[in-house]
Amino acid sequence: MEVSWEQSVEDSINTIYLLFSAYLVFVMQLGFAMLCAGSVRAKNAMNIMLTNVVDAVVGSISYYLFGFAFAFGDGSVSNPFIGTNFFALFNIPNSSYDYTFFLYQWAFAIAAAGITSGSIAERTQFTAYLIFSFFLTGFVYPVVAHWVWSSSGWLSPSSSELLFGSGAIDFAGSGVVHLVGGIAGFWGSFIEGPRFGRFDSFGKPVQMRGHNATLVVLGTFLLWFGWYGFNAGSFDKILVSYPTTTDQGNWTAVGRVAVTTTLAGSTAGIVTLFGRRLLVGHWDALDVCNGLLGGFVAITSGCSVVEPWAAIVCGFFAAWVLIGLNILALKLKFDDPLEATQLHGGCGAWGLIFTGLFAKEEFVVQTFDSGESGVVRPYGVLMGGGWGLLGAQVVEVLVIVVWVSLTMGPLFYTLHKLKLLRISVDDEIAGLDISSHGGHAYVHQEENQSPFIAYRPLQDH
Amino acid sequence: MEVSWEQSVEDSINTIYLLFSAYLVFVMQLGFAMLCAGSVRAKNAMNIMLTNVVDAVVGSISYYLFGFAFAFGDGSVSNPFIGTNFFALFNIPNSSYDYTFFLYQWAFAIAAAGITSGSIAERTQFTAYLIFSFFLTGFVYPVVAHWVWSSSGWLSPSSSELLFGSGAIDFAGSGVVHLVGGIAGFWGSFIEGPRFGRFDSFGKPVQMRGHNATLVVLGTFLLWFGWYGFNAGSFDKILVSYPTTTDQGNWTAVGRVAVTTTLAGSTAGIVTLFGRRLLVGHWDALDVCNGLLGGFVAITSGCSVVEPWAAIVCGFFAAWVLIGLNILALKLKFDDPLEATQLHGGCGAWGLIFTGLFAKEEFVVQTFDSGESGVVRPYGVLMGGGWGLLGAQVVEVLVIVVWVSLTMGPLFYTLHKLKLLRISVDDEIAGLDISSHGGHAYVHQEENQSPFIAYRPLQDH
Amino acid sequence: MEVSWEQSVEDSINTIYLLFSAYLVFVMQLGFAMLCAGSVRAKNAMNIMLTNVVDAVVGSISYYLFGFAFAFGDGSVSNPFIGTNFFALFNIPNSSYDYTFFLYQWAFAIAAAGITSGSIAERTQFTAYLIFSFFLTGFVYPVVAHWVWSSSGWLSPSSSELLFGSGAIDFAGSGVVHLVGGIAGFWGSFIEGPRFGRFDSFGKPVQMRGHNATLVVLGTFLLWFGWYGFNAGSFDKILVSYPTTTDQGNWTAVGRVAVTTTLAGSTAGIVTLFGRRLLVGHWDALDVCNGLLGGFVAITSGCSVVEPWAAIVCGFFAAWVLIGLNILALKLKFDDPLEATQLHGGCGAWGLIFTGLFAKEEFVVQTFDSGESGVVRPYGVLMGGGWGLLGAQVVEVLVIVVWVSLTMGPLFYTLHKLKLLRISVDDEIAGLDISSHGGHAYVHQEENQSPFIAYRPLQDH
Repeated sequence: MEVSWEQSVEDSINTIYLLFSAYLVFVMQLGFAMLCAGSVRAKNAMNIMLTNVVDAVVGSISYYLFGFAFAFGDGSVSNPFIGTNFFALFNIPNSSYDYTFFLYQWAFAIAAAGITSGSIAERTQFTAYLIFSFFLTGFVYPVVAHWVWSSSGWLSPSSSELLFGSGAIDFAGSGVVHLVGGIAGFWGSFIEGPRFGRFDSFGKPVQMRGHNATLVVLGTFLLWFGWYGFNAGSFDKILVSYPTTTDQGNWTAVGRVAVTTTLAGSTAGIVTLFGRRLLVGHWDALDVCNGLLGGFVAITSGCSVVEPWAAIVCGFFAAWVLIGLNILALKLKFDDPLEATQLHGGCGAWGLIFTGLFAKEEFVVQTFDSGESGVVRPYGVLMGGGWGLLGAQVVEVLVIVVWVSLTMGPLFYTLHKLKLLRISVDDEIAGLDISSHGGHAYVHQEENQSPFIAYRPLQDH
Repeated sequence: MEVSWEQSVEDSINTIYLLFSAYLVFVMQLGFAMLCAGSVRAKNAMNIMLTNVVDAVVGSISYYLFGFAFAFGDGSVSNPFIGTNFFALFNIPNSSYDYTFFLYQWAFAIAAAGITSGSIAERTQFTAYLIFSFFLTGFVYPVVAHWVWSSSGWLSPSSSELLFGSGAIDFAGSGVVHLVGGIAGFWGSFIEGPRFGRFDSFGKPVQMRGHNATLVVLGTFLLWFGWYGFNAGSFDKILVSYPTTTDQGNWTAVGRVAVTTTLAGSTAGIVTLFGRRLLVGHWDALDVCNGLLGGFVAITSGCSVVEPWAAIVCGFFAAWVLIGLNILALKLKFDDPLEATQLHGGCGAWGLIFTGLFAKEEFVVQTFDSGESGVVRPYGVLMGGGWGLLGAQVVEVLVIVVWVSLTMGPLFYTLHKLKLLRISVDDEIAGLDISSHGGHAYVHQEENQSPFIAYRPLQDH
Repeated sequence: MEVSWEQSVEDSINTIYLLFSAYLVFVMQLGFAMLCAGSVRAKNAMNIMLTNVVDAVVGSISYYLFGFAFAFGDGSVSNPFIGTNFFALFNIPNSSYDYTFFLYQWAFAIAAAGITSGSIAERTQFTAYLIFSFFLTGFVYPVVAHWVWSSSGWLSPSSSELLFGSGAIDFAGSGVVHLVGGIAGFWGSFIEGPRFGRFDSFGKPVQMRGHNATLVVLGTFLLWFGWYGFNAGSFDKILVSYPTTTDQGNWTAVGRVAVTTTLAGSTAGIVTLFGRRLLVGHWDALDVCNGLLGGFVAITSGCSVVEPWAAIVCGFFAAWVLIGLNILALKLKFDDPLEATQLHGGCGAWGLIFTGLFAKEEFVVQTFDSGESGVVRPYGVLMGGGWGLLGAQVVEVLVIVVWVSLTMGPLFYTLHKLKLLRISVDDEIAGLDISSHGGHAYVHQEENQSPFIAYRPLQDH
């Protein structure tokens, strides 16, 4: 029997919305690559870009084969811990999920490993990278996604048995993506230790500035662009009307998410601009970029359930969380070249708590119950919504920290013990690009000359 | 009462159309950042990128708090000069405007300041930049937008009382965005004076080439990409059918706008390529990039109301306007590092005039009256449409020049008198990145070394 | 008579789908520019970026004037070899084609010349480039597009008389775009000969590494992003339901195409990563980038008619085709700086054959007959679909090779004989940017100084 015209229209509209959002999320992989490349020293630029490409290509295969199944494979018997269906897209498309949904989720999955790559930059063996990336994208991340985003997940706000009558609200993944990536990065960076020369013989930190600020700005703007797909795309369907309003539906909320995302990031950027001006005495573009990203990370959890003014509050505190954790990291001699632990971990955790404080009742019901009348749910504590939601948010923070620590910690430690994790000091001084990747990212003309050609080129650089 | 299915479908389609267009317009901010960075000397790259980031983040907050209200805040009593409603998105969404419309307009607002940043590049104090950007995005620009784009604006082609029975047609903002940004840039650049060393002791111009042509090309292509959102997105709604045609509606016009935009920019690029080849004797990629952008600026006003062949005419003359004004600027010892005055100001003004000459009756009625039958409007002089439209276009050019001069001129002059505008000669020679932003955009390895580490790294760059 | 609401909805949805896909395809032009710039030596970066810009701007005008007419100008008397209608968009829009379709096809047309620009990089006169680009985009490419994609084309799978009862399936153009560009590149590169110094006096190849790996990665990711528009957009309409399924239509297939594209590219990237690791002993990011692109090129033909698992097979062999052809090229002393002949030509041909082997009956009928029941078509040999399709695919490979060789070969040869093709050895050593484009892409501060200014700037780079 043919599909009805109305159904065709709905499916087409929802597919366009989700598919183009997926493309935007994919751009974040490019954004990460540029941000990371610019933030490391030139001698390691090729290495970190390769890790970003590898996250994408290895992630495609592992997420296709089993990652998606672990995350969204609800079977006839549902499992709150891990999915068990749809391996290698078997039985996809079906009435719940189609190819576009898979692509959207794939783009999220490869982002998590990208976050962690920043924490362990400039000193990690490439083989170790391949192993950790495969494990994180294919197993550790999908399991958390199942808990929070699958309808059978034990933390999910759409499950039949809601934790604390609420479930955790992590709309686009401050926890599922960013906190997971940040905690994984923490263990990698902690077990590897600081880069050689990061702290001098007196224990004083030595600045190791990235080699190219233009790439950092390029990467940051691309991440901003992609974040609109990440957050505003997470409704999955745009054509959902709210029964209790006269002219609103998911299309209204989608626009509002784009606005809250913009305001949270912008506020965090401004606060960082002035905050760092007071602290270090100059206007630093790179600080603003990291502040911006911290604001985006934080709003990612609650973007669909808070008012625009609350997004400004979210961004304001996200900036100080990042500034504070960066000071703390220096004190503790913790060296995360991209600040990924502080930024994605710290601001991700703040974002989950923020949602528990500021979520608005109407928006919560619209987001998770299509605005049906009569639904009662806990919402933000400061909005008078009780402690159920905040409790679930705290539980999400804790279980992510524990789960990622219990899986990624031992993995990194084992690699460390097997001497597979960190490169040698000589290789670190020479740079990964020379030692592992066959040459520098930037080539001066002279390197290309053969001694068997008599002439030398004219000055050409 | 629930929204009807038909209304849901319409709202979803229009939201997708406008929201993804808004994302594209946002990409223009990245395009500007890369174009500007590549066009200045390496020692000022960080500074100008920071200004582009600041335009976005400061603009988010100021446009949220009052800029949008000044532009589109039509109240129960309408005001043709300035809007007075919707501060901090109060009462948004409503039956006229929703979040997506705000986001789309925000992306336009931050573009205007980006244009001006090019004119005052390489010699402006950062504090002055913050003040001017806030003032331009939050007040000067929104007021012009209100005049031309709000239904209560006195220049608007949708107002109840049409100026000269026509109103000005500035569909996507050759005047509202580009001429405003260009005139603001003119005053900034004029009051600051040329960069140190731009003209030698004999008054002869000394070339100051940007440091990275790759970034210029990257920025130009990103602007081209974003311009499709800027122009083709400016219908706000795509699902509007024309009553007098059998199969056309805004969806037809949206595609036509993308085509006229492409043809105008391409023509201007080709003319510049060959024109500059004749004038300077080589094929210059950077000239072609600027020519392209000049064509885009010029077609922005009339893109929805002219035939594709007219877009070619538009681009042809835009190239010569730019070439001519650049020669004039050199003669007058006017130094605008990005040619923003000439490009956005000159081609923007030409675009408004062009529309008054070539607008086609059918397209004007479709764009502003949804193609209703029986509507009579002035249109292009050369198309037989009388002088009403051209008159309104000339008025728009004049009032923008006067308004921006009266607001931004005194602002820049006051900053100048307070010695807040231009940096010192020493700082200018050293470069803004060192003097104001804590370091260069590009870092060579050696700068990262502490003297307290005994070994030196091997040659790694 | 006004268009019905249902028709308005369909047209709006299909326009959004195709228009935003067109924008993505346009991004590929930027991707090519960055990939090419990074892959050549710094002294030729400006030149190759200019060629990419020129492809776009010259292609706009030539495709508007006659390219589109040659490709899709079906008249009342249909011509299987070349189109004869719609010059300069005359009679567009009509019931078959509108502006958006033109824009989408334009973005494809400019891609073909971009491919070829890589093959002849670093040694070609700019005038020759202008001539060949105009000829390829305006004539050679559109004719092939007419054969395969126009409903009156003799190779088309939608024609009334199907070749071998099948017609060739080249959904998004492994042959029409990539093989055409690759073969054109082969002749250009073959007739010009290797770059000076590419093989030393003993005939041993001398590595000539590109100057900037970051740009290569940037370009590759942008191409990946754009490929989603290229492949998933090629249905032209998303709102087409399949009569024999309960809930599927083109929207399902669009998502599947995005997935097969992702998997083929990713597989090819992984295979190249490990394959090259075995062959050359290090992990090379640039190899992975080229492998990825080879996988995309190969799946472009069959992306809509194969299962995701088959896309993995496609990518696996694409990687080895590329690796093998690269080894062969070195042996034969064939120097294609971007590997465009091997990548776009070799993997493009493989993609056509692959489709003849693995096309699935159901998907073929859905793609070309909207899934109507009772339609019988040949499909993949290995899927039991007989030899008709594979035969047509082989014919497409052969005729493209012959057609492009017969047109572009003589063109390049004539330019060569007229001494218009290759630059002089001196210019080649100095670099094209100095000899033809007025200066290097990258400017160090000192070059900007006039001798008539007394002071020297402080160290600023």
